[in-house]
Amino acid sequence: MAGSTFGTLFKISTFGESHGKAIGVLIDGVKPKMKISEREIQQELNRRRPGQSKVTTPRKEADQVEILSGVLKGKTLGTPICLLIWNKDQDSKAYDELKDILRPGHAGFTYLAKYGIQDYRGGGRASGRETAGRVAAGAFAKQILAKQGIKIFAYTKEIGGIAAKKIDLKEIEKNSVRCPDRNAAKKMEKRILQIKKQGDSLGGIVEAVVKNCPSGLGEPVFNKLEADLAKALMSIPAVKGFEVGSGFSAARMKGSEHNDEFFKDRKTGRIRTKTNIAGGILGGISTGEDIILRVAVKPTSSIAIEQNTVDLKGRRRTIKVEGRHDPCICPRVVPVVESMIALVITDNLMKQKLLRRRI
Amino acid sequence: MAGSTFGTLFKISTFGESHGKAIGVLIDGVKPKMKISEREIQQELNRRRPGQSKVTTPRKEADQVEILSGVLKGKTLGTPICLLIWNKDQDSKAYDELKDILRPGHAGFTYLAKYGIQDYRGGGRASGRETAGRVAAGAFAKQILAKQGIKIFAYTKEIGGIAAKKIDLKEIEKNSVRCPDRNAAKKMEKRILQIKKQGDSLGGIVEAVVKNCPSGLGEPVFNKLEADLAKALMSIPAVKGFEVGSGFSAARMKGSEHNDEFFKDRKTGRIRTKTNIAGGILGGISTGEDIILRVAVKPTSSIAIEQNTVDLKGRRRTIKVEGRHDPCICPRVVPVVESMIALVITDNLMKQKLLRRRI
Amino acid sequence: MAGSTFGTLFKISTFGESHGKAIGVLIDGVKPKMKISEREIQQELNRRRPGQSKVTTPRKEADQVEILSGVLKGKTLGTPICLLIWNKDQDSKAYDELKDILRPGHAGFTYLAKYGIQDYRGGGRASGRETAGRVAAGAFAKQILAKQGIKIFAYTKEIGGIAAKKIDLKEIEKNSVRCPDRNAAKKMEKRILQIKKQGDSLGGIVEAVVKNCPSGLGEPVFNKLEADLAKALMSIPAVKGFEVGSGFSAARMKGSEHNDEFFKDRKTGRIRTKTNIAGGILGGISTGEDIILRVAVKPTSSIAIEQNTVDLKGRRRTIKVEGRHDPCICPRVVPVVESMIALVITDNLMKQKLLRRRI
Amino acid sequence: MAGSTFGTLFKISTFGESHGKAIGVLIDGVKPKMKISEREIQQELNRRRPGQSKVTTPRKEADQVEILSGVLKGKTLGTPICLLIWNKDQDSKAYDELKDILRPGHAGFTYLAKYGIQDYRGGGRASGRETAGRVAAGAFAKQILAKQGIKIFAYTKEIGGIAAKKIDLKEIEKNSVRCPDRNAAKKMEKRILQIKKQGDSLGGIVEAVVKNCPSGLGEPVFNKLEADLAKALMSIPAVKGFEVGSGFSAARMKGSEHNDEFFKDRKTGRIRTKTNIAGGILGGISTGEDIILRVAVKPTSSIAIEQNTVDLKGRRRTIKVEGRHDPCICPRVVPVVESMIALVITDNLMKQKLLRRRI
Repeated sequence: MAGSTFGTLFKISTFGESHGKAIGVLIDGVKPKMKISEREIQQELNRRRPGQSKVTTPRKEADQVEILSGVLKGKTLGTPICLLIWNKDQDSKAYDELKDILRPGHAGFTYLAKYGIQDYRGGGRASGRETAGRVAAGAFAKQILAKQGIKIFAYTKEIGGIAAKKIDLKEIEKNSVRCPDRNAAKKMEKRILQIKKQGDSLGGIVEAVVKNCPSGLGEPVFNKLEADLAKALMSIPAVKGFEVGSGFSAARMKGSEHNDEFFKDRKTGRIRTKTNIAGGILGGISTGEDIILRVAVKPTSSIAIEQNTVDLKGRRRTIKVEGRHDPCICPRVVPVVESMIALVITDNLMKQKLLRRRI
Repeated sequence: MAGSTFGTLFKISTFGESHGKAIGVLIDGVKPKMKISEREIQQELNRRRPGQSKVTTPRKEADQVEILSGVLKGKTLGTPICLLIWNKDQDSKAYDELKDILRPGHAGFTYLAKYGIQDYRGGGRASGRETAGRVAAGAFAKQILAKQGIKIFAYTKEIGGIAAKKIDLKEIEKNSVRCPDRNAAKKMEKRILQIKKQGDSLGGIVEAVVKNCPSGLGEPVFNKLEADLAKALMSIPAVKGFEVGSGFSAARMKGSEHNDEFFKDRKTGRIRTKTNIAGGILGGISTGEDIILRVAVKPTSSIAIEQNTVDLKGRRRTIKVEGRHDPCICPRVVPVVESMIALVITDNLMKQKLLRRRI
Repeated sequence: MAGSTFGTLFKISTFGESHGKAIGVLIDGVKPKMKISEREIQQELNRRRPGQSKVTTPRKEADQVEILSGVLKGKTLGTPICLLIWNKDQDSKAYDELKDILRPGHAGFTYLAKYGIQDYRGGGRASGRETAGRVAAGAFAKQILAKQGIKIFAYTKEIGGIAAKKIDLKEIEKNSVRCPDRNAAKKMEKRILQIKKQGDSLGGIVEAVVKNCPSGLGEPVFNKLEADLAKALMSIPAVKGFEVGSGFSAARMKGSEHNDEFFKDRKTGRIRTKTNIAGGILGGISTGEDIILRVAVKPTSSIAIEQNTVDLKGRRRTIKVEGRHDPCICPRVVPVVESMIALVITDNLMKQKLLRRRI
Repeated sequence: MAGSTFGTLFKISTFGESHGKAIGVLIDGVKPKMKISEREIQQELNRRRPGQSKVTTPRKEADQVEILSGVLKGKTLGTPICLLIWNKDQDSKAYDELKDILRPGHAGFTYLAKYGIQDYRGGGRASGRETAGRVAAGAFAKQILAKQGIKIFAYTKEIGGIAAKKIDLKEIEKNSVRCPDRNAAKKMEKRILQIKKQGDSLGGIVEAVVKNCPSGLGEPVFNKLEADLAKALMSIPAVKGFEVGSGFSAARMKGSEHNDEFFKDRKTGRIRTKTNIAGGILGGISTGEDIILRVAVKPTSSIAIEQNTVDLKGRRRTIKVEGRHDPCICPRVVPVVESMIALVITDNLMKQKLLRRRI
């Protein structure tokens, strides 16, 4: 029920199957009189779009966004904004042949278990293509946040065991893997092309930083900021884990090591912490320090190596997914991660506004 | 706004501050005519209660539950169920002295940033004591799930670097750390008592398994089962990370290693997977295999070692939290993890029921 | 915030401005594998469409529905269904001239007070045109209800003081005012044409009956069935009042007159009431008798008679709305009333299903 | 599901059965640092309390409110506020005898149809006693509104056919029927005592005015202000109809009569309407004029006159409800109407705040 809606005050609903007529997103909660730069929405979509580089899928989709409602002469009306991306004529024949064979690691099996029916063409609703709607909506959220100086950066931290050694935010968009470390990026690219040749795929870690996030965001006890972020990011296809700040390394730390020491920042007069092991959130509420989080991305399930499986009747079959798939999805997950974070932060800013101001 | 409510169809709202008159939980969505065993609720509360063993806080709280509404002669009415746990007369004097000093790792700072006011006594609403309401509600959910053969087991997987080597579910409640490996449990107990003597604390990992969960649960694309679980578990105090199945280890795997092979189970006629690297969820929907997940628990912030900090005015202070705190919170987090999972599974069972049956 | 979404389990969100690119509706909560008859959706839209007869506006809009998502080969997928109705090229010039003049009885003034901006062309979002999305979604709901034998009939009970004397459901669609009394219908039609000539407009009363509604629907204490229905129907443009069963006449009755006597129906073995003064709902829950309700519809605000008003700067102006407006909106409100009721009953059937069946 | 929760941003959940341990309300969304006057809450409860005068039930219930959470030293914490009213030891014996007999006009029949179980003692959850929680929460809302100069007055407009001829707000609390016309009040009182002697009961009309409500409140297209109000008021036990402004009289008006003329108020510089036939709402959004609405209240169902009915098995029985019931519930409905309106206006003020201010 209503699993396609995200957010409370800044609310989005995505719709559409990957090989249907169109995919899109309905956004409710955008303030009126906001200038909309269609160009900025398209820019974000372009970052997610397939066919950007040799390390992503060679499929070409324009992903041109069309605004159907809620905007008049470049300004929001405060009414629901519907954004549409038409699916170009897709060749679904390949899927027709394979539609009875369960693809390992894919959602076809569980969609059938749930709904008793599935749009088998290109993953249908389970396709990563659905995230284009999230990115389009995220572009709105990012524009709202940017006005307040809040910026979100996501990047590939690790691919196939190769980790970024340094974080140079300016480097991110300069390489095809969106890694903030130029040297690591080169190694990652090489490793991806190698695995691609083998018909296999790689997993990785995407990290994100929210800069200049005000303190006070998050709604304990259930809608803690890290809980909202976890839900947002775990809902992205292929994500298997989430952590904030110390994350899983906290399990091997002592309290005396983990606690961040408070001090008064002479320059700003603000109380801050010397370290930021917490990752910018304490007790479910932002501290004002950078929010730092990480997600684990599984290796793409569609691989060109022959795998054993069964068909819907349980008969043994083999499958070799020859399609044009991403050998590693991390570079294209980056803008989706940013978008989901932007939605969460925007929603929480609005909630916090309710608390601190006179009605 | 409304951050104290969790769930959609099976909905709970907790209330109360740790040193206020009472804490409690309001449950909406429990089916009518269900037999309620108050004893089973109390049993679950006893597992969370302080003072159970030498590795937990020596504080003694009876945590006796009282049913205020929604139940008539031992049967639910289908109306909201209010459960209350009175706070016994608490000595808040210790807190009065410290109320202006920011305790490292604690939520006092962020609660003030958010609300401009805080119940400083014992953490107020941010106290782990709030989770008693979750456990009471979780006991209801567990009773519902048990009728369908669904069982949830959580246990301490790792503390202070000591990991369980084997998983013997019968062992869990036999040792004070709730570890399914007797030998590891002994080492953990020893390590905890050692760190306690030092006035320090330890973090750890709690793992959980849902057995006999039907396939088809989870509501893509945003309310995926792993997303709901992530939110539920990241909302527990002290949790810094969440992962399902392969989790962060997926980042270093290849697609050919990560994909679970489908086969037909001759005995049951069901299609299953040979391995369960996915952890029982594909595309946001349960597969029917065991659901396996893990959370990272940070070391308790309240430690008896002197730490540098500031007071509300930013003046340098030191603090030494002499209270009777848990040197490692994992053993008491276990029933809370189970409860939150039980709430999520129950809610999702109800959602799935809407899909598959005639209205 | 999110004022364009209606329903809980069967949820719809409408979008679009009357002179924008398109209007539409996103439906979430439709069960999978349901056969969709696009023809039936279109039939309902045709009942609401302008230009049906000489008593409605002469504007011609095809209102052709297009299914964008959620349906594969004529069957629902259980995923969000997006229905689109393109707005044909509309002449907005008339509106450009009048855009600074406040039209009496119109929402332009309040939209500006709320949003600080308005799509002045044809009422924008406040236009009755928005209800096309409701009717399209209502057609889905009606198909679901019809399978269970539940039928909803709305009809014009009164226009300009002329009331239906008898209720012949078969007559409703046979006359242009949708009145179940042929004689009254003729008088109403005559009266409407007369008022149209005067450039004025008429109000009326629309009544509705839900036949074969099972007992047990409605969710006290706030989501009582009559409360849900009231909200649904008061959200229709031009509706000023709502009543169920006895309604306002209850104010002048005695308890001994108002109470419906219970008896056992020999044929069915069911307990029923001899009279149905309650209108099919007791304590917020359906009794199993016909649900009967009424709404008051105000006279169309757009009239061709000159009226005094001011412009946005407060300067005195006169206005004469020469457009092609409905002299009485009741006949076209009828399908909207049916649709909103269908949405409420469907949603409540789903809720009730949660209560009575094993998970 | 969750039918006991009302509101979106200012959210209340009531709980408790009339003869259970306690009834209460959980409020979420109250701003922090708000001074709480327990006395003002109690004052409102006293207005709803039984036994106030000879025209209400002679039952005596103290209805003393107890604050369990969310308040520290007289100030709100921004966390959920739980208010409790203990039920005094009630004599349920009378109900034990009648529990199998269906009382005409009562919800026992439908509660059984819905839940298959009912707390038959005093109406259980369907009892008007539940509204005490609404009034307690409404007292909070009223305090918030009062700070902004917004005042809500409800009063008895008509009882048993006797209507108030004038509206003198100062008179309302001076007579036992809460009628703003002293002469009409006397006639109403006399009429009530007369009907009481006959063992019968009377219906009536309660009208309400919201003074100084800012323009811009209401969230089209579904959460229009009149739709929210309709839902709120139709959820009050015994209410059968709702209208705003012209209401049902609109059905007999012409557009030229119904449209309110805009003019510029020289004193304030604001654009206003000369008349207020709309009742303070246009297009679902408040205009800034007084909001005026009315509800129809049915005659109390519990009457001392013998009535025919059946028992749960369908056997013919007679019933005579000898209890101490209100011969006319209007005077006690008045504070409930005010409370529900206060909740709606507060919620909508918060929503509007989201739109107009910088995040």
